[in-house]
Parts: sequence; C-alpha cells; structure tokens
Amino acid sequence: MGRDERGVTPQSEDFSAWYNELVAKAQLVDRGPAKGTMVIRPYGYRLWELLQGELDQRIKDTGHQNAYFPLLIPESYLRREAQHVEGFSPELAVVTHAGGKELEEPLVVRPTSETIIGEMMAKWVSSHRDLPLLLNQWANVVRWELRPRMFLRTTEFLWQEGHTAHADKADAMRETMLALDLYTEVARDIAAIPVVPGEKTAGERFAGAVRTFTIEGMMRDGKALQAGTSHYMGTNFAKAFEIQYTSETGRLELCHTTSWGMSTRMIGGVIMTHGDDKGLVLPPRLAPHQVVIVPIGRGDQALDAARDLAGRLKAAGVRVHVDDRAHLSPGYRFNDWELRGVPVRLELGPRDLESGTVVMAKRLGDEGKQTIPLDSVARIMPGVLEDFQALLLRRATGFRDAHTRTVDAWESFTDAVTSGWALALHCGSAACEDDIKAETAATPRCVPIGGASETGVCVRCDRPATYGTRVIFGRSY
Amino acid sequence: MGRDERGVTPQSEDFSAWYNELVAKAQLVDRGPAKGTMVIRPYGYRLWELLQGELDQRIKDTGHQNAYFPLLIPESYLRREAQHVEGFSPELAVVTHAGGKELEEPLVVRPTSETIIGEMMAKWVSSHRDLPLLLNQWANVVRWELRPRMFLRTTEFLWQEGHTAHADKADAMRETMLALDLYTEVARDIAAIPVVPGEKTAGERFAGAVRTFTIEGMMRDGKALQAGTSHYMGTNFAKAFEIQYTSETGRLELCHTTSWGMSTRMIGGVIMTHGDDKGLVLPPRLAPHQVVIVPIGRGDQALDAARDLAGRLKAAGVRVHVDDRAHLSPGYRFNDWELRGVPVRLELGPRDLESGTVVMAKRLGDEGKQTIPLDSVARIMPGVLEDFQALLLRRATGFRDAHTRTVDAWESFTDAVTSGWALALHCGSAACEDDIKAETAATPRCVPIGGASETGVCVRCDRPATYGTRVIFGRSY
Repeated sequence: MGRDERGVTPQSEDFSAWYNELVAKAQLVDRGPAKGTMVIRPYGYRLWELLQGELDQRIKDTGHQNAYFPLLIPESYLRREAQHVEGFSPELAVVTHAGGKELEEPLVVRPTSETIIGEMMAKWVSSHRDLPLLLNQWANVVRWELRPRMFLRTTEFLWQEGHTAHADKADAMRETMLALDLYTEVARDIAAIPVVPGEKTAGERFAGAVRTFTIEGMMRDGKALQAGTSHYMGTNFAKAFEIQYTSETGRLELCHTTSWGMSTRMIGGVIMTHGDDKGLVLPPRLAPHQVVIVPIGRGDQALDAARDLAGRLKAAGVRVHVDDRAHLSPGYRFNDWELRGVPVRLELGPRDLESGTVVMAKRLGDEGKQTIPLDSVARIMPGVLEDFQALLLRRATGFRDAHTRTVDAWESFTDAVTSGWALALHCGSAACEDDIKAETAATPRCVPIGGASETGVCVRCDRPATYGTRVIFGRSY
Repeated sequence: MGRDERGVTPQSEDFSAWYNELVAKAQLVDRGPAKGTMVIRPYGYRLWELLQGELDQRIKDTGHQNAYFPLLIPESYLRREAQHVEGFSPELAVVTHAGGKELEEPLVVRPTSETIIGEMMAKWVSSHRDLPLLLNQWANVVRWELRPRMFLRTTEFLWQEGHTAHADKADAMRETMLALDLYTEVARDIAAIPVVPGEKTAGERFAGAVRTFTIEGMMRDGKALQAGTSHYMGTNFAKAFEIQYTSETGRLELCHTTSWGMSTRMIGGVIMTHGDDKGLVLPPRLAPHQVVIVPIGRGDQALDAARDLAGRLKAAGVRVHVDDRAHLSPGYRFNDWELRGVPVRLELGPRDLESGTVVMAKRLGDEGKQTIPLDSVARIMPGVLEDFQALLLRRATGFRDAHTRTVDAWESFTDAVTSGWALALHCGSAACEDDIKAETAATPRCVPIGGASETGVCVRCDRPATYGTRVIFGRSY
C-alpha cells in the first residue's frame, strides 16, 4: 500500500508532517471540534493510563494525597497574584453565562489551580501541625493555544498538578526537588526518555514562581521538549491567599508553597523520542500491547493456538493482544502493528504449528526475525521486554549525546542548535537571551543540575558567565 | 466536647442537617467558591478512587476501552437532538470568550458527552466490523444546579460515562442491561447498598433516550437515591450525528447507541445508606482506612508497637492507618475515627503491651470492645472486615425491606411514602404521575426488573394498571 494510505512522511523529509500523520494514523488522537482540542482515542488513552499509574503510585508513596478542586474559578482569584494573572490572562477560557443567565462574576476554566487550591489551603492550615500539606490532583485544564499541536500544545490537556504548603523555605525546596526527581525517574525508567533535570532561567519561569525546575528531553529532530516542571513559589501565593500557620513558638508565619505538573504532553515526548519512519516505537512499560500475536492461515487452528499462547503470556504478566482480523492480509497486519509501535510481534502460521515454533519480530534491533520454540515464549518474554526497554533508553541516550555539543565559539553555537543542543556559558542577561533567540530560535532550556563547575565568558556577548556551569540551549516545542 | 464542635445533629432531628454537617466534619468535602461547586478533600477523594478502581476494572473486563473527549462542545451540537437540547439547555455553563476574544460560536462545558462522542463515532464507524464500539470516559461534567447539595447535586461532578454503538437493537439492549448489571453489582458488593434495578417511566427518561434504566437505593430517611442510569438511545443519536455502517449485505444502516453513567453522587449514597448519629459508617471495600490503630500513652513504646502491627496488617492486604497525634487525647481520637466511619479501631495502650493484647472496637455491631491477642490481629482482620461488609449490606437490606410497603389503597400509599417506598400498581399516565407527585412529593422511582406479574387498578385513579407489575414510588434526592 502507498504511503498516503498507510505510511507516514519520513522524519528526514518533514518531521512535523511525520508527527501529525503518525498520531492520527496510529489512532492515538483525533481533532476535536473546538479549536485546538483533541480526542484521545483508546490506544492513546491507554498509554496515558499506564503513565498515570506509574506516576500516581510514586506520588502516593512519597506521602501525597489526591484531592479534587473545582474546574471553574472566579476571575478575581487570578488577579490576586500579579505575575500569575499576567502570565495566564491571554490564555483563559471564560464562562460568562450559566443556567440561562449572565453570571455576576465571570468564571475562568482553570488553566492551572494554584489560586483555588491556595484559597482552600488557607482554610485548612492553621497550625504547624497541619504542615506539610501535600496534595495532588489529576485533572483537565484549558489554555487557549494559538498554534495547537496534538499532545504538545492543546487547548485542553490532562495532567496532574501537585500543590504543597510548608513551614519554611528549606522544606519547600526539598519538596520541589523531590517532585523533579519523581519526574526524572518516570521519564527515564518508564518512558525511556533520558531527560536532563535543571533549573529554568529567570525569563522561562512559571508565572508567580521564585524558582522553576524542568526536565528536558531531546526529540529525534534535535529539539528540546519540556516534559515536566516543578516550582518553588516562595511566599508569593501564601501572601496572596493568606496561607498562614502558627509556629511552635506561637508566631503567625507565611507558608512556602510549591507546585509541579506532568501532562499528556509526555505522550508527545514518547512519540518523538523513539518513533521512526515506520511509525511509533513504544517502550514496553507504556505499551498498551507489549506483544501482538498474528495468527496466519485459514481455519481456527492458528487462532486457537494464538489464544492459548496469549493466555500463557498474560499469566506471565505480559500485556498481549491477538490480532484476529482474518479479513486482512498478514502483511497488512504486520505493518499496522509496526506503525502502532508494538515492541514484539509474534507470527503464528501453519508451518509454525507443525514445528512447534513461533516467529518473533522485534520493533527495533538488529536480530531480524527469529524462530523460537512455542513453549519457551512465555518464559523468555518478560526478559525480552526488559531488554527492549533498556535498548530504547540506550538508543535515546546515545542520540542525545551525539547531538549535544559543548561550544565556546558563536559559530559553533549557531551550528549546534540547528541539529541539537549546545552546552554553552552564558551571561544570564535577559536581553542576551532574547538576542540569541532572535538569531537562532534557540532558548536556554535549563541550567543542568550537577553540571561541572565552569567559569568564563558568555558564548554570545563575551561578558562574564553566570550560573557557574554550562547552560543547555536548544530549539524547543 | 459539645455537638457544635465535634458531633452532628441526630438523623431523627434533621436528616438534611445531619448530612450537611457530616460531609464537612468528616473532611470529605468543602464548598468551592463558584455556586454549587465542591472541593473533594483527600478522605473523600480516596473513597472515590476506590470506587473508581472497582468500576473501572469491571468496565474493562467486559470489553470496553477508556478514551477522552473534549470538555468544550460547540453549542450547535446539542441542538441536533431535539429532546436532548431541551433537557439540558437550562443547566448549561457557556464559554463565550477565550484567548482574549469573543468566540464566533459559544462553547458549552459538557453536561454529558453523547453529542461530541456521537460526532466522533460517526467518523470511526463505517463497517459492521467496527461494531460494537464500546467506549468509556472518566470525566468531570458541569450542570448548573439551582439547589446544590454536596455529592448529590453539584454544579460540577465527576463520573464515568459509557457510550457504545451497535449494529442492532438487540445488541444495544444487551449492552444497556449489562451496564445496569455492573452498577447493581458494584453498588451491592462494594458499596453495600442493596439497590433495586428497574426501568424509569416515560416521564423520568433521560433527554433523548428511548428507554432509561436505573438503580435505586433507599437512604436512612426513607428517600430514594438514583445511583446510576443506563440508557438505550435507539437510533436517535445515530440519526442526529449520522452514525452509520455498511452491513454484511452491503446496506447502509443506522447504529443503535447506549450511554450509562455513575458519579460521585454514589458517595452521597454510601453516606446516607450506612451513616448514623455518630457519623459515617464506611463499607470496608471503600474505606480509605479499614483499620485505624490508636497508640495510647507517653513515650514511643505504644507507637512503635502500633507501627509494627500496621506493617503486619498491610502485609495481610489491609488498608491501615496509625493515628500518631499524641497531642490529642485518646477519647478525642476515638470519636474522630467514629465520625469518619472507620470500620475497625484498635487501641494499644501500656496495659495491652504488657499482656500482649489489643482492644478492638468495631464501628457497628453488638459485640462492644473486645480484647484480642496482638499476634492474632493480622490473621483474623481480613475475615473481620468481610463480616463487617456483609453486616452493612444485611442491615441496609433489612432497613429497605422494613420501609417498603405493598399498598393498594391511596391512604396506605400516602402513608408509606412519608417514611419509605410504596409498591403500587399504576396506570402509567403522566398526568396521574404529576398528580401523585403534587399531593405526596413521591415519584415513580422505577418499574423493578423481575417484579412479580400483577394486574389490577391504579393506586391513585382506579384506571387499569400498566407495566404488568408493581412500581416503586418514593420521595427522592
């Protein structure tokens, strides 16, 4: 079948077209009717559920509790924190009418929940004994996007937002870094994305935050994707919403708060970190189907054997699917599962049944098709999947490192950011950042945590470098 | 401590006040700032998560797939199904401005998703091979409520909505009843609510449905709560959204669709089915803490022993919490966990430590406090909790049956519905239903499935009875 119907534009030809065609053809999403909205189809939603499960468990294990706060927020709440309202105002969707009447005060559809959660925290916290207050919410949020992109930038998206209140700065900063660690771990160990954790420069901070941390992943076009952020708010929101407590010595003190979020954007990251010209490549820990069995040939013999094998794989803890679409040719089905990124395909035809074997084809790797004994499949599969997961992380790490250059000269910088990241010293001035962006489209993605100490001059303006280490610059989503 | 601070108004004095005070004092919910919205606090949200997990598993096990559809729906979509828009128009919240501009077409915040899912189904279904299409969504919905009530009737609530498309009526009706069965099972086996499944009369149907089924539970004030509904839509939505398929014989046919939902309202049902004057009584399968251990006395000895015991209970699969609030008196803590409905409380004091025992107090039952060997606790607890779960269902069933009367005379009817349900023959006329409602505030809750065949005359108007069985009438939430 031709590319138009089944295949996708090669990445090297047009990465953006590759992405847009793939998310639709792999049945991850569909466009919603309202501008920039997306319908997450079952295959895409299952990916999200699996990611959610992993993240939710870690959030609970570290002492946070889930709660749920209202979608609709009085407009006046946002105005209480000056930077916050300035940052979010242009993106708000506003409910002006409800129950057949015009509302006295318009309600904003939450773009994020610091304000309404701040208001509730103020009610719930009174003593030092109420701290830390560690909350998390799984929710939909709405931000009006001018240039929507499925998963990456949609008018509505799904996420979790952690919101915590603490007695002092030290405790709040520990929390901020804890959340960043959770994100780094989930990205690396579950999504096989070797993200770099670091701090945003002042110009890239969250609206209302004192410090913003991020995890940045490199996509296969060399661009960076911000895949999760964690913010230390200082006492900004505590002041705006009067989140206060009485200390052990009886003094009234302001809380220090944090917030942190990871969203359906992460699915875009998985697609662009691992996918290739044949389609998606899914890490086993997130794959809705880790193994697909394609029975071949007429009659029920192969199908029965496939179902029997599926039962044994399921018992071994493997997510397995039997493709029983007998009206489609084997070749069509093979391509379909390659497009949809299933890690392992098992082909089961009449000849295999006779010889008691099965043909195994991995979505990635050098082995080609392998013929293996049918009765060994369930035993070896968990290991095969672990190896595949590790392969993806190794491959993505290799790609990232091969496309990251340590540069000191401006010419090297401009060259590096056309195909990947530049590690460069920077003066830290906003004007210089703007200048770099205007000329190269690259921005400071983060100041990596644990970067080697280094001093010198700014790659762009020759003024003394700040931050004490090299900054990652790159183009981004 | 007095009732004002810690206790709640007795049910017999004012059931409504009891409910409103309890949901707040047990820290299940708080009021949100926008009219009728609720903040679901961690204790309430955990209840919801546990219910969600049970329902979601059953939805998946029966072949449905989760997906996610946009929150914001073009207003014109609702108008495509005449009855649907008539039913929902008065309750809509409308986004008129977004991204700093007035929208060309206002967007409705979804009150339910038949329309937007119908639009997508039409895209996804073309052949009989695409059917049945079995989708489910976990989401928030908004319906502007004039008389909001926490959990029962809030402007925003959380729910799952199943939406399915089928080749014919028979298959769609099977699905409609399957969903009703799932709800009946979850209500009975998990929430310990002995609901009655049945069909709604024409006047109580969902806007746009051909047939509406419900599960009805009896609350401890004798009123009915509709705790889940399942609708057969016929081809109404298929016509409005052109959900069509080519049959095996090559003919273009309309799909038959269903939808079904269960929401956070169910939590209100749990509270009002089991709660008493001391507070909540939670069924173990939904209790965030199935067991709370209260260590008593100064020093770390009791606390250490409590934590050790908690570890063993956790290993036995029990959700256990250690109340380490040493600054509160034991009595205060006992009352607190009674208010919050924890099935089993374990008290561990210095004397218990010496004798190697623990005091067990169940939230309900005749045994009073029991002293049991410390080292038997983890072994017996799963059984104790199962028995407690069964006790709740037995007790609620007894209450329901004691407050349900089979009546033929109008005087008996009016008397029965002041304290419970009336099982009565009815003519089925809408005018007669209205008349009954005006005089008694009671409505037909459902025509029970499997009700004994019976003919005769209407309890109200003496015309011939329809439905072929008795109808449940009651006041309701």
